[in-house]
Amino acid sequence: MNGAMSVLKALEAAGVEVCFANPGTSEMHLVSAIDRSPGMRPVLALFEGVVSGAADGYARMSGKPAACLLHLGPGFANAMANIHNASRAGSPMLNLVGDHATYHLQYDAPLNSDIEAIVSSVSDWTRRSKDTAGLVQDVAEAIAVANLAPGKIASLIIPADLAWSQAPEPVPVPATAPFIAPDEEALYNGLAALVSGQPCALMLGGNALVGETLEIAGRIAATTGAKLITDCFPARLQRGAGVVPVERIPYFAEMATAYMAQFKHLVIVGNKPPVAFFAYPGKPSWLTPEGCHIHHIVDASGDLPALLTLMAEKLDAGSEVLRAPAAVPPAPQSGPLTVEAVAAVVANMMPEDAIVSDEAATSGMPLFPMTAGAARHEWLCLTGGAIGQGLPLAAGAAIACPERKVLCMSGDGGAMYTVQALWTMARENLDVVTVIYRNNSYAILNIELMRTGAGMPGEKAQSMLSLENPELDWVAMAQGMGVPGRTARTVEEFTEALAEALARKGPSLVEAVVPPLKLG
Amino acid sequence: MNGAMSVLKALEAAGVEVCFANPGTSEMHLVSAIDRSPGMRPVLALFEGVVSGAADGYARMSGKPAACLLHLGPGFANAMANIHNASRAGSPMLNLVGDHATYHLQYDAPLNSDIEAIVSSVSDWTRRSKDTAGLVQDVAEAIAVANLAPGKIASLIIPADLAWSQAPEPVPVPATAPFIAPDEEALYNGLAALVSGQPCALMLGGNALVGETLEIAGRIAATTGAKLITDCFPARLQRGAGVVPVERIPYFAEMATAYMAQFKHLVIVGNKPPVAFFAYPGKPSWLTPEGCHIHHIVDASGDLPALLTLMAEKLDAGSEVLRAPAAVPPAPQSGPLTVEAVAAVVANMMPEDAIVSDEAATSGMPLFPMTAGAARHEWLCLTGGAIGQGLPLAAGAAIACPERKVLCMSGDGGAMYTVQALWTMARENLDVVTVIYRNNSYAILNIELMRTGAGMPGEKAQSMLSLENPELDWVAMAQGMGVPGRTARTVEEFTEALAEALARKGPSLVEAVVPPLKLG
Repeated sequence: MNGAMSVLKALEAAGVEVCFANPGTSEMHLVSAIDRSPGMRPVLALFEGVVSGAADGYARMSGKPAACLLHLGPGFANAMANIHNASRAGSPMLNLVGDHATYHLQYDAPLNSDIEAIVSSVSDWTRRSKDTAGLVQDVAEAIAVANLAPGKIASLIIPADLAWSQAPEPVPVPATAPFIAPDEEALYNGLAALVSGQPCALMLGGNALVGETLEIAGRIAATTGAKLITDCFPARLQRGAGVVPVERIPYFAEMATAYMAQFKHLVIVGNKPPVAFFAYPGKPSWLTPEGCHIHHIVDASGDLPALLTLMAEKLDAGSEVLRAPAAVPPAPQSGPLTVEAVAAVVANMMPEDAIVSDEAATSGMPLFPMTAGAARHEWLCLTGGAIGQGLPLAAGAAIACPERKVLCMSGDGGAMYTVQALWTMARENLDVVTVIYRNNSYAILNIELMRTGAGMPGEKAQSMLSLENPELDWVAMAQGMGVPGRTARTVEEFTEALAEALARKGPSLVEAVVPPLKLG
Repeated sequence: MNGAMSVLKALEAAGVEVCFANPGTSEMHLVSAIDRSPGMRPVLALFEGVVSGAADGYARMSGKPAACLLHLGPGFANAMANIHNASRAGSPMLNLVGDHATYHLQYDAPLNSDIEAIVSSVSDWTRRSKDTAGLVQDVAEAIAVANLAPGKIASLIIPADLAWSQAPEPVPVPATAPFIAPDEEALYNGLAALVSGQPCALMLGGNALVGETLEIAGRIAATTGAKLITDCFPARLQRGAGVVPVERIPYFAEMATAYMAQFKHLVIVGNKPPVAFFAYPGKPSWLTPEGCHIHHIVDASGDLPALLTLMAEKLDAGSEVLRAPAAVPPAPQSGPLTVEAVAAVVANMMPEDAIVSDEAATSGMPLFPMTAGAARHEWLCLTGGAIGQGLPLAAGAAIACPERKVLCMSGDGGAMYTVQALWTMARENLDVVTVIYRNNSYAILNIELMRTGAGMPGEKAQSMLSLENPELDWVAMAQGMGVPGRTARTVEEFTEALAEALARKGPSLVEAVVPPLKLG
């Protein structure tokens, strides 16, 4: 067998089943090997930012890495922004990056680049395979690194001639994933804080925000009265009626500071102390108030289920679990569409066990609080701030969970970055409803311009923050990529369009024409 | 004045007039400074790959750098593929990359990344500004580097607090651009080769492919009988009826080797010896035959006008100039549309002094030879092989040359990468006719799969190389971004649509539905 086939055997041995891909000439033998591997599902994307964003969504929902097949340095570069987001999400990711044949590098052909520098700039682990016989070991090590808790970015550069040369029969290599030990002193002090009677936040992250682990945290909260919180942009958060409620720290630094002021103790399990997303002149970057004690037990690389189980034992937590009540705001029946109306309609229509990919930025601000008591669902955030994640993430989540409805809530600015994701949704017939908030603006930047003290925008500054002139027609663009869509300008139209989209199995788009959010 | 304003003053002093931008929160003070700088024209793009591709097109046609305003590491990463292409084109480029405030970095906020590593991986020069007072000097040095012949990538990282802090009045710093001296021995031997009577190629590159310098090369060719050639993908090439004809070396390695076999001497001025774009099992990477002598006088960093003038003198070249005759193939009047028919129609309709942005890949193969004797025009190639350059490049060229018609000839696969460029064309009302060859395929990869010996594609491999299921509707996508478009499936429809588009001042799109190119 050739090297490419041995790579596929190693992937199969490690349980990697999906390959998001945008290949080029240097990956042709890997394409051919995928062809001959019944256990591997290739998913084509028409831009590499969709490849990496989808791999992130898949990893968040399946808990394991997909492979990303990328074409040399520039192909990897196109994927980088969403690799950054995946890294911030703690998603396991395995990048297979084709390169020129080893002997071809000396000629510095047009596609040659400093591929190690490009790849390693956002990877936790980078290796250039040295020979065909070593490919199996390289892949196995890459997957082992990717699976390090909570999930790492592992990138393997595969020269084309290694892929097409003959390889020995691969020997599967076992992968190990060590956990980071908790800080014993912080654990002791954190437990003391939780029973102190003082206002206390238990800040969670990583896989403590879903499933049984979240249930344990809910028992601790019920016993101690601690408030469960997480950072502003968690990778994956279970929520809704009957689910343990977790609050997100607000985005704007001054609101976050005010929010954190209620706590005397911040006990952290699976996260790190909260910081401001950006710096602003005269505003704090560190969000925990001075008088609040931080007990940082472990970050997301810890064994969070075991740790929270231990904490519940030590705290003698009962079986009672803090749960969010079923409660949704009344949805308006008519009138012009607003971001609040969208939120209320979505809250009322939320499908059971839906997955929400949220890159709605300012327009989405009412959405999270108003869906707190909606039907049980999971929420995926833009973790790294690199916009253009929402649509690809939704596509990847849908591939991981084909039986669940995915609701992608996106601002128009972010959605344009990786709009090509719509085509992959159509190609794979993914069960994703994409709602585009069309406010014709980088609305967050109009707010940030003020907040950074850069002054009132004149005509040229406004032109750099506006998506007007011309306005985007999302229904036309979606149609161009094979996704049916409808425009909604009123509550009635949105309600009807969303109901139709949710009733349909397969991708669809709703363009929600809304005014930009008014703050305060 | 604040630091941002001093950056703008330094740009103005250096003659930088256009800023392609996709800013974020950390660039708000730079946005505000642009607002207050009458000499700076901001051009918004909805994805950073459009920013860098447009800056490349602008630089190729104007000969000077635009500024690119980018948002931290991920924003730069999105621009990287077209920065790679610009680097290969030898285009001067100035990237201004906002970063978090200096004091904010310690908190490792979500958008934090190893920005120096990301930026320097594709930049010739990278600097992080250290203080507000130094910003003027930093910008001046960056521009001086960008202007080094033939053009370099200079990237300046500007922390947000430096932009918003007070700066002293800027002092303009003069920029210098040294040239590389020619290899005297190669020059002597090259001149001897040119008069030897043996089959000789004079391989040109950089700014020797346009204007007066190309005229001098045409005199040398007329005197010596040497054939003028360039690499497969030149950055900018003047051609057409009455222009000095320059042949491009073919793309496929075996054709390139056969082409090069005709020469006994290869004299290189402004380029480097030709190499294969990719490696293939059993095929050569080095394209010059063994018996051919290479006289490498200077690469594109040399003073090519002075050098060719000197060579013409030494060769006693007369005033006769080799010129391409006016000759276009007859255009078919009817029938189903093919890539050959598109080429013939374009050749017959080529507007005088048009600029052609060529990312047509396989579909464009007949286009170059068939337009050799068309109305005088200039040809811009995909220099670095990172697809997604054609549309942004056309936009940038149109901004540099508002009085000239730009014809963007693109394959469907490449055009999808940076499809957001259509919106910028609409926003700026750029005089660009975009022709999308819709063959619903990464056609080049179907050819490359065979050529690399990866075997016959099965169903899964085919799915990874195909843009079918669903087919893209380019007219709908263009409409969604404010660009009027028409579909053409026959020669009549294409002829009519192209005529209408060319007659219009402003952007338009023609979707040319064609079968994939059949080779040999």
